[in-house]
Amino acid sequence: MTLVPPPAARVGDSLASVATPSLTIDLDAFDANLAAMSAFAMRHGVALRPHAKAHKSSEIARRQIEAGAVGVCCQKLSEAYPFAAAGVKSIHVSNEFVGVDKLAMAVELASHVRLSVCVDALPQVQALGDAAARAGVTIDVLPEVDAGQHRCGVTNEDALLAIVDGIASQSALRFAGIQAYHGGIQHVIDWTARKDEASRAADVAARYVRALDARGVACAIVTGGGTGTVEFDATSGVFTELQPGSYLFMDGDYGGIGWSGDLRWRHSLFVLSMIMSATRPGMAVCDVGLKGLAVDSGLPRSVQWLDANSEPALTYLCANDEHGMLKAQREPEVDFAERVGKRVLLPPGHCDPTVNLYDEYVCHRNGRVTDIWPIDARGLSR
Amino acid sequence: MTLVPPPAARVGDSLASVATPSLTIDLDAFDANLAAMSAFAMRHGVALRPHAKAHKSSEIARRQIEAGAVGVCCQKLSEAYPFAAAGVKSIHVSNEFVGVDKLAMAVELASHVRLSVCVDALPQVQALGDAAARAGVTIDVLPEVDAGQHRCGVTNEDALLAIVDGIASQSALRFAGIQAYHGGIQHVIDWTARKDEASRAADVAARYVRALDARGVACAIVTGGGTGTVEFDATSGVFTELQPGSYLFMDGDYGGIGWSGDLRWRHSLFVLSMIMSATRPGMAVCDVGLKGLAVDSGLPRSVQWLDANSEPALTYLCANDEHGMLKAQREPEVDFAERVGKRVLLPPGHCDPTVNLYDEYVCHRNGRVTDIWPIDARGLSR
Repeated sequence: MTLVPPPAARVGDSLASVATPSLTIDLDAFDANLAAMSAFAMRHGVALRPHAKAHKSSEIARRQIEAGAVGVCCQKLSEAYPFAAAGVKSIHVSNEFVGVDKLAMAVELASHVRLSVCVDALPQVQALGDAAARAGVTIDVLPEVDAGQHRCGVTNEDALLAIVDGIASQSALRFAGIQAYHGGIQHVIDWTARKDEASRAADVAARYVRALDARGVACAIVTGGGTGTVEFDATSGVFTELQPGSYLFMDGDYGGIGWSGDLRWRHSLFVLSMIMSATRPGMAVCDVGLKGLAVDSGLPRSVQWLDANSEPALTYLCANDEHGMLKAQREPEVDFAERVGKRVLLPPGHCDPTVNLYDEYVCHRNGRVTDIWPIDARGLSR
Repeated sequence: MTLVPPPAARVGDSLASVATPSLTIDLDAFDANLAAMSAFAMRHGVALRPHAKAHKSSEIARRQIEAGAVGVCCQKLSEAYPFAAAGVKSIHVSNEFVGVDKLAMAVELASHVRLSVCVDALPQVQALGDAAARAGVTIDVLPEVDAGQHRCGVTNEDALLAIVDGIASQSALRFAGIQAYHGGIQHVIDWTARKDEASRAADVAARYVRALDARGVACAIVTGGGTGTVEFDATSGVFTELQPGSYLFMDGDYGGIGWSGDLRWRHSLFVLSMIMSATRPGMAVCDVGLKGLAVDSGLPRSVQWLDANSEPALTYLCANDEHGMLKAQREPEVDFAERVGKRVLLPPGHCDPTVNLYDEYVCHRNGRVTDIWPIDARGLSR
């Protein structure tokens, strides 16, 4: 017996008939973001290696590479598999990993793509070098330096140099540069303060490059930067490669910070939901909650009626597992009963973990579904 | 080219070799919880219809039914499909829904299982009755009453009676009783206060039952109750059926409330993670963050070393997408570098949305993997 739920949408459907909840992409906004970041990186002569942890979709990676990206970043080894399978040729795993199962993934991936990875301790270098040599593959290594986030990464030049020596002693590893990513400053609200923080992180990276230089080690790649800091990183004179991810989509978190420079990103990612109950004045209940919206960076900051005539203005008040509580902003007595069945669009507070809840993007233009893209790296966190 | 990540675990593996992050079940604790709830419901002569939104696994539903459950609840129609496909005979969709795509799912499900659903407005009754009649199926309907949560459900007896009349006028619908669920009181910390709240919710349900009685309508089923209130609901004299879900697993949220009665639940669900970086004194970084732990109800409240000798005591400080920051509780200068590669067990703050991030449970007993159960309703929120 084949008993599976019907598809949420088919190409050609009206957006107003797409099943809810669905994760939707406004392709006009998406294309504008895609093109703007590519042009920006090209203009500044830095490589663009977008972070695929944001979209987890080989269809999107293909478009980014067609637009000039040199490859993608992944945050986990398992996450890299669908991109490798789809023909992405260059993948950087921007994270540390340990253990025999992880090493086995690394060498398998390295036999299909040009793989680079991060390390921040000597035992990782040795284990990786041994595994790569046994498998007959070569892996590029970019030691991570702590650019100020105090998460992963070496904390002093001596530790970096010891790791570089360790890489040099491994015939199957190749020192390719360093990673200096500071996630903690991406969402600094004040644009000038964010610029200053980015400058400090670049200074830290530069210090490590000078230490390598003094040892006669060329640092071909300095990779890092996110959507919040790329405009500063690109002109820092330090970074050679940028890793932004969220710029394609925007989200509540990035939408809430100051954008005083030339770069502007449009919201392209929305959860399509439906009012499914309204039995109390001024309140409505929609059909998406914690299982369709990541709330770690807050609830959706706006509720847009798909049919603009549906009004009145709503606030997304709280999320249960499969319910979203909506409240009229101004009319406490308004009866939403007649609006049951109407659709609303919700911008996620945080795009990355929201994307990770869905199996596909429903892409639309001019109110029609034009593409359905699988989120083929969904759930791949190993 | 087949290029997919290797499996996280195989039956027979040591738990200490399972790939991280993985969602694991301690089967001794799980079995104890399963048996205790079944015995509790049987002892009190109430039907047990566990909520499958908590576990989303037909393997677990099968075990619940073998242990005496009358069927399961689902929160969404699409969520019901894998349970129907796996042979669960009785499914209650404990939620409202609207729209042609949802009605199509309801009638398809009703042609395979005994389906009951909730409604809280007359148009839903009419649409459902028409769809069921056209498809030649019969659907049980349990109008939802607002037991105090102020989410879904009718808010007065007249509205309920109008809906019951509406159901009676539809040849393909059958009035089966009412649903009175109050999610807002499940986590009241003080046991006595929670008992009082549960009593108030039961009083509300009783009021609706009396109104039906006065109209000569028998209310065979009063369904509701969650893990936090079942001990009161079972003895209320009002509820005939209980819907708990989290009792199988427990989580940080339920672990933090008072349990003064006879019922005690053991933590059986843990995310297995690994220390993958430690370059700063007193700090370690593990490989699970927002994409493997739902944080809407808080971070993991404890960090257990899988190897008890690994010590020292840790606090899970904050979650990034794929990183968890861990901090030594007492030794600010301790160096975790030698503990990179060690595994830790993390109890999720909220089980339901954490389960929804994984494709399988790795089940273990005495340190060995004994079963791998697919989370076959993962992501099914339509």
